[in-house]
Amino acid sequence: MKIAVMGAGAVGCYFGGMLARGGHDVVLIARPAHVRAIEQHGLLLDTKTFKQHISVAASTEPWAVRGAQCVLFCVKSADTLEAAGLIAPHLEESAVVLSMQNGVDNAERARTVLRQTVVPAVVYVATEMAGPGHVKHHGRGELVIGPSAQSENLATEFARAGVAVQVSKQVNSALWSKLIINCAYNALSAVTQLPYGRLIQGEGIETVMRAAVDEALAVAQASHVDVAPDIWQQVLAISNTMASQASSTAQDLASGRRTEIDFLNGHVVRLGTQFGIATPVNQTLLSLVKTLEAKRDQRL
Amino acid sequence: MKIAVMGAGAVGCYFGGMLARGGHDVVLIARPAHVRAIEQHGLLLDTKTFKQHISVAASTEPWAVRGAQCVLFCVKSADTLEAAGLIAPHLEESAVVLSMQNGVDNAERARTVLRQTVVPAVVYVATEMAGPGHVKHHGRGELVIGPSAQSENLATEFARAGVAVQVSKQVNSALWSKLIINCAYNALSAVTQLPYGRLIQGEGIETVMRAAVDEALAVAQASHVDVAPDIWQQVLAISNTMASQASSTAQDLASGRRTEIDFLNGHVVRLGTQFGIATPVNQTLLSLVKTLEAKRDQRL
Repeated sequence: MKIAVMGAGAVGCYFGGMLARGGHDVVLIARPAHVRAIEQHGLLLDTKTFKQHISVAASTEPWAVRGAQCVLFCVKSADTLEAAGLIAPHLEESAVVLSMQNGVDNAERARTVLRQTVVPAVVYVATEMAGPGHVKHHGRGELVIGPSAQSENLATEFARAGVAVQVSKQVNSALWSKLIINCAYNALSAVTQLPYGRLIQGEGIETVMRAAVDEALAVAQASHVDVAPDIWQQVLAISNTMASQASSTAQDLASGRRTEIDFLNGHVVRLGTQFGIATPVNQTLLSLVKTLEAKRDQRL
Repeated sequence: MKIAVMGAGAVGCYFGGMLARGGHDVVLIARPAHVRAIEQHGLLLDTKTFKQHISVAASTEPWAVRGAQCVLFCVKSADTLEAAGLIAPHLEESAVVLSMQNGVDNAERARTVLRQTVVPAVVYVATEMAGPGHVKHHGRGELVIGPSAQSENLATEFARAGVAVQVSKQVNSALWSKLIINCAYNALSAVTQLPYGRLIQGEGIETVMRAAVDEALAVAQASHVDVAPDIWQQVLAISNTMASQASSTAQDLASGRRTEIDFLNGHVVRLGTQFGIATPVNQTLLSLVKTLEAKRDQRL
């Protein structure tokens, strides 16, 4: 299957690398430093079970999506509209775009720009870029994707390459569950620059996470989204199953990249304002990350 | 007047230095590095209007309070009981102890250990230790103290040395106003390591400060404390009048010292729990400072 990865950071490189290793025809559309490294040495796929250089095409150009039957759309939430606009002129009519992003409204927003089928995907993976062309995998690596004419076929093709995909009508609930987990961990991990296992031992941190989760649940309810009733147990479990992981927001903040906090705690705050639901903890976490980001970029 | 400063950090060195310069017989009880520097070169009093080496006695020993008619009690809130216990055996019966500390219950707690008159004082000064024996003054420098048999006399004596003192029955309200200002700024300045003027420009920071203030006001009301009705205007004004100041909590966090956050946002959270008043923003700020402190001290 011909597959393009638009915005190949840690998540895109991991899944693109796995699919290339599984025999698919993959091109990674990434930043120049990654593209140069991948062209020279291949992609270094450094997983929990193996470490291997994968030969895979790489490009800095959006037109590299040409001919792809599937696009793994992995850009940051803030870049969704722009990136969708960049690939739109080059995309096959029949291509399916998998929105593999944080936040809950990226597929919806991408559809305002793209005529193709856009399928929301919930990504469960712990991964980071350890250097140019070097993706380090800390755990998991499965997807839940929404239903579409091509979804079952994608699940079959991906499974052959070792990527488990579940097709689910409840993908929106799953997106919200992940959003809520992100609201609990991402900002706190970013502000303290701590991995989840150490973070949760902080005095009162569990209380703060619980308050952030309860605010997000109230907003989800007002949005008529059914969230798994055991969401709080899911949140707590992450501190064990991903103990050594720092959040993507923590990584973004430390690495000079723009964070996605506007689409995580920021999304909850915006909907809270809309519905008249108080979200003081999410607002505090949002503002702290925005302020640290602005300080880092010397905008304060 | 014979005056001892117990816990001569930035606040104690500033006021002790001013009083010594004004002709009072002052001894600074401080950490060894400060004492050594002060014994060698005097105290470097580096104010907005003058910079002068002040010849003043210094000691690391609590018994240096002997003979003092007045003790400026300037230890961190967490050390109140221990420090009061250390000076108690050496203190003149007639000595008056001025609790020049953050938080609202230090005088009350010190009274459980000391038989002497303990007068609460609200300290308005922006100051920091710039090095051993070197206190840097950024602005203000006045006190509001509670009424006592000696309070008017202290006010007169201090005024002669250029330290304005107002004696007020409303000292408890003033302590609470300062607590509320501290709840708005101290943790946010500590977590972001930003001075007030830059901090308040952070996206949403004013909203967060307002929420922290409203929670603290609800707790004050439940405690039957009258807080100045213009407290929010006072909070906002600080970002102008003390724009270049980072909070004492920010300084403590950066310098490896224990913060007083348990007696600032922590006090509001404890009273909130007692009165059944929600304090989610103060809890979040408290937990973040506690967690950053524990991380710094490698306790996480």
